[in-house]
Amino acid sequence: MSYVRNAWYVAAWSHDIGAQKPFAITILGEPVVIYRSESDRLIALEDRCVHRMAPLSLGRCEGERLRCMYHGLLFDPDGKVAEIPGQDIIPNQARVKSYAVIEKHSWIWVWMGDAASADESLIPPAVGFDHPDFILGSGHLDYAAEARLINDNLLDFSHLTYVHANSFGATDTWARNRPVVTPLARGVRFERWITGEAGMRGRDDGVLHDRWTSYDFLIPGVLLMTGGYFEPGTAEACNHQAPDLDDALGGITFTSQAVTPMQAKTARYFFSWGPHRRHGDEALRDALMKLADMAFGEDKVMIEAQQRVIDATPDPRIMPTSADKGVTLFNRLVEKLVRAEQDALRNAA
Amino acid sequence: MSYVRNAWYVAAWSHDIGAQKPFAITILGEPVVIYRSESDRLIALEDRCVHRMAPLSLGRCEGERLRCMYHGLLFDPDGKVAEIPGQDIIPNQARVKSYAVIEKHSWIWVWMGDAASADESLIPPAVGFDHPDFILGSGHLDYAAEARLINDNLLDFSHLTYVHANSFGATDTWARNRPVVTPLARGVRFERWITGEAGMRGRDDGVLHDRWTSYDFLIPGVLLMTGGYFEPGTAEACNHQAPDLDDALGGITFTSQAVTPMQAKTARYFFSWGPHRRHGDEALRDALMKLADMAFGEDKVMIEAQQRVIDATPDPRIMPTSADKGVTLFNRLVEKLVRAEQDALRNAA
Amino acid sequence: MSYVRNAWYVAAWSHDIGAQKPFAITILGEPVVIYRSESDRLIALEDRCVHRMAPLSLGRCEGERLRCMYHGLLFDPDGKVAEIPGQDIIPNQARVKSYAVIEKHSWIWVWMGDAASADESLIPPAVGFDHPDFILGSGHLDYAAEARLINDNLLDFSHLTYVHANSFGATDTWARNRPVVTPLARGVRFERWITGEAGMRGRDDGVLHDRWTSYDFLIPGVLLMTGGYFEPGTAEACNHQAPDLDDALGGITFTSQAVTPMQAKTARYFFSWGPHRRHGDEALRDALMKLADMAFGEDKVMIEAQQRVIDATPDPRIMPTSADKGVTLFNRLVEKLVRAEQDALRNAA
Repeated sequence: MSYVRNAWYVAAWSHDIGAQKPFAITILGEPVVIYRSESDRLIALEDRCVHRMAPLSLGRCEGERLRCMYHGLLFDPDGKVAEIPGQDIIPNQARVKSYAVIEKHSWIWVWMGDAASADESLIPPAVGFDHPDFILGSGHLDYAAEARLINDNLLDFSHLTYVHANSFGATDTWARNRPVVTPLARGVRFERWITGEAGMRGRDDGVLHDRWTSYDFLIPGVLLMTGGYFEPGTAEACNHQAPDLDDALGGITFTSQAVTPMQAKTARYFFSWGPHRRHGDEALRDALMKLADMAFGEDKVMIEAQQRVIDATPDPRIMPTSADKGVTLFNRLVEKLVRAEQDALRNAA
Repeated sequence: MSYVRNAWYVAAWSHDIGAQKPFAITILGEPVVIYRSESDRLIALEDRCVHRMAPLSLGRCEGERLRCMYHGLLFDPDGKVAEIPGQDIIPNQARVKSYAVIEKHSWIWVWMGDAASADESLIPPAVGFDHPDFILGSGHLDYAAEARLINDNLLDFSHLTYVHANSFGATDTWARNRPVVTPLARGVRFERWITGEAGMRGRDDGVLHDRWTSYDFLIPGVLLMTGGYFEPGTAEACNHQAPDLDDALGGITFTSQAVTPMQAKTARYFFSWGPHRRHGDEALRDALMKLADMAFGEDKVMIEAQQRVIDATPDPRIMPTSADKGVTLFNRLVEKLVRAEQDALRNAA
Repeated sequence: MSYVRNAWYVAAWSHDIGAQKPFAITILGEPVVIYRSESDRLIALEDRCVHRMAPLSLGRCEGERLRCMYHGLLFDPDGKVAEIPGQDIIPNQARVKSYAVIEKHSWIWVWMGDAASADESLIPPAVGFDHPDFILGSGHLDYAAEARLINDNLLDFSHLTYVHANSFGATDTWARNRPVVTPLARGVRFERWITGEAGMRGRDDGVLHDRWTSYDFLIPGVLLMTGGYFEPGTAEACNHQAPDLDDALGGITFTSQAVTPMQAKTARYFFSWGPHRRHGDEALRDALMKLADMAFGEDKVMIEAQQRVIDATPDPRIMPTSADKGVTLFNRLVEKLVRAEQDALRNAA
């Protein structure tokens, strides 16, 4: 797996981690246990007891600490062993790795690089349930596929026309026209006008308008997208640049999505979606989530099948198309950042 | 896997491939998609899009063509990409492999060698539903075992006495007497008389007769068998050679069977069976198929168990017996043909 | 797998092997078939036909012999082929391995070393259903984990406090106090007094007493444990040595347990438990077995999770604690015996 380590990975939805209930997830192949302590502090540790490698996620929260429930070793929030039952001396090496962890935008983010270098400002500006403007639903899907294949999918919306023919009902325009793709410091931006078309399935009242869509796909694999529909002619009036969203006739929604590599060929995909309060209500949110569940299931069928074909191919090769500009930009950015991390490690050694 | 490539492999029953419904099967480790075009032409392509390796079998038939439903690449029947949505220029290397494919005797046959060298005359003379003389039922079974183990099973009918003690109820004679085994250009022929015995289960009326059985086992793994029962003394009257089947008292049936290697340790086994019109009707066909389902399930239990033992054996060895003459002849033929193919490839390079 | 070969492994409970019903189990990666012949002799053979590696456990008992039900080879109790149907000459190499096998203490024991060196005196003195003093129940569990991890678990009862908090309800004393650990020629002995405490769950009447526990853990992985509770002060009166069990107030039970390595990462765990006749009846046995089923399920959850963490760890390491004295002694003994076996093999060669 070639993924950036100095980045915040989504480990869970906030509401998936209960009070003093250890939660397990593998990120970049590393087992991580996350818990909320008695004082409601969020703590993330290596999920592997230093004694005999039992998972601490089968353990018990005790105050601020976590006890391994195999032979009772007790761990401090910094990963140091605080107690070995029946033994007075605790060796110095008796510690597990501790991860920087932050709860923000309704997600639990874990920094997979050195905890000392964790930089909160690098958390992508997702929209959580606490956002005043959006009414959101949420979900997640586990993939039997490499996270990179899901990233590639999200970096090229030409697939909407085909993969989502039955759910979103996207027109050919999504495949034939290219968005404006702009490199960002930590990702890629996609913007596009689709002009003079009716809405997608479920929102198609036959009225033609100009539709604006814009999303950022950010390291390590976070998609943040908004958009809406406007009076016909708006795209041209804006010179095909970004409109003022306040001018939208309707359809403004926000979706936050995150792809977290677990093992080499498994990943968890988190997503939320919902309308702006001025453009919809809980009922619309529920309708959108129903559509999302269907559409993201279509992606999963295609991507897991793609993974199986790749696995059965002795010498896998791809042939990029002109729709792959964003895919290529993002994967090059990942490679550049990974190389820089490896150089830094070598220089430090 | 050491299998002949210049051969016709059964990919499906004719009736398993619907109009414009792509059908997927892996043969010799290669993913193949087969479809009937709008004009009812049969087309077989590599089931792996040249773009990002999505399976074309999740695609959509459009006229004579097949569209990948990931990002919309459209493929001609010869495997060449006809369209990349939103892209004007199509690179020369934008093509997938195209296979020679023929529908005959109710089977879909795919030539796994170079399509240019496909030789229709090498299709084994199976008996299909269109044959005027036989009333056939059909089925298939998927094996978690190497195809070669199923071939070996079909090349030595001494197993009938033991594996099929509960279904066919074959006598000890099947294990103790040896058939006449004759090498053919593309296979092995087995012929035998079993004299003075009653019929097998379901056809045993207590009357003793002489039973004739003859089958060819042909490259790549196709069994074609007929036989029937005759007046006692017929074997001797024929000097233990082949009888005139028109003289049979009854019991003339035909079975076509085919073993197709999928992955290294998976295979699909196709089979039909049924009586000659003069010796039975639809009811007898159904009774025979019920018996076949039971018997071929017995083979599957034994062969998959055999595969598990082989897999758990560090240095697997076999000890052939005198019943293995046909097995040995056929496997040597396969080795000879494989070697010749490899030599030809080397000489061409 | 590094396990002693010159040892008796438990293959089954006596009552699990019916008359003339071949029984299959893999021990140390070797497939073994065990059957009771017509004369009720117990026979253990390599479960892999010399012909084409079909499992003999799918075979049929015929008198003292076992017939392979693939092509009918018939095996003598010493593993030699007695008959190849339709073949007069039987080659010398036509034999499978024969194992020394003994039924004792309600278990079927198989010697995994050279059968000629099998030494019945090395069978651990387990307590079977035929024992006059104990009323026993029994069971077994299959583990998706290496046998050594189960041995390690049974060699360190500090886990009782944590793993079995919900079942046995063991106090902290089990984790904080250390037993007396004594090396034996073929194992390790654990003895301890826990003084002035009430009984564990299900036997806690609030009365405090001194509890004595003693068990041997013997090559290859057999645990034999007894104990009971005594008047407070008995431990001190005995100078913390072993008491006379006849002085027990109650609670004397016996449990025999055996861990059998199957494949590299699978194992079968056999166990019995029950009260001394003077201290309980069938109803108590059933209550204890219910508790055992719950507790051994807790071990399985922890140990299989531990195995998964180990498998996902590139460079697995452990950090022993002072509770690991018995684990270390036993594993060193195994290593010593394995080394001696390998030296003997080298010298013989």
